[in-house]
Amino acid sequence: MFYEDMPVGKTYATGTKTLSAEEIIAFGKQWDNQPFHVDEAAAKESVFGGLIASGFHTILTAFNLTLQASDWSESSMGSPGMADVRWIKPVYAGDTLRVEAEVTAAKPSKSKPDRGFVDVQYNILNQNDVLVSSYHSTHMLKRRDA
Amino acid sequence: MFYEDMPVGKTYATGTKTLSAEEIIAFGKQWDNQPFHVDEAAAKESVFGGLIASGFHTILTAFNLTLQASDWSESSMGSPGMADVRWIKPVYAGDTLRVEAEVTAAKPSKSKPDRGFVDVQYNILNQNDVLVSSYHSTHMLKRRDA
Repeated sequence: MFYEDMPVGKTYATGTKTLSAEEIIAFGKQWDNQPFHVDEAAAKESVFGGLIASGFHTILTAFNLTLQASDWSESSMGSPGMADVRWIKPVYAGDTLRVEAEVTAAKPSKSKPDRGFVDVQYNILNQNDVLVSSYHSTHMLKRRDA
Repeated sequence: MFYEDMPVGKTYATGTKTLSAEEIIAFGKQWDNQPFHVDEAAAKESVFGGLIASGFHTILTAFNLTLQASDWSESSMGSPGMADVRWIKPVYAGDTLRVEAEVTAAKPSKSKPDRGFVDVQYNILNQNDVLVSSYHSTHMLKRRDA
């Protein structure tokens, strides 16, 4: 997939990934060592009432699902950033995540004719189709003719 | 540290963390399996000219450094989101990261008197004091009297 394969309005959906308690705790211990991410007993006493995934774990799971769903291995030149990362609902152990993506903007680079910028809105839903998180990301992709 | 310990204008700095090639590749293989994150030879041929850390690896390293620098273990109630995540310069294997943080807004919750919201701008710098990445995050913290 190149820049030209991501026109405005294009949508796509990913596969699913279930987050186990073990995965949530392992991620938390490495990156986000707060009680409600790493300690089931403490999590039950917290405002969340149970073990929840780090918001970064949710976003990375979504990003991984979108990488699997979109073959950018030839064209990706990285990303200048993300905007508006929202953690809307807790993601509990055993929840299954999937992503719905939509291209919201696409423009060729003015200074470098070999590439373009594509903005994508990513909505992350759980097994009950509840929106749990979302983010907006810009991708720099090679143009097909480059 | 509670809500009251994070007034607008407060700044703080973290310790440092050096990202090794092995750590960059391990993170990439798990979460961001693009050639310039996981394959030194392919990375040399890429636009980056060498192995670079996943942007998520950079942000998580910064987040981890800030967790270590600020004792929120009693007061953190999570985060509703992040804004304006910027990947400004590549982070290469061997680069050493540190974070400078500044509180940009603080307001008590209107509906729940036990908590408040604190906005923090995080600037991530390398060993040459170059700004490589930044992000803005909102934290929900318990109030001291709660």
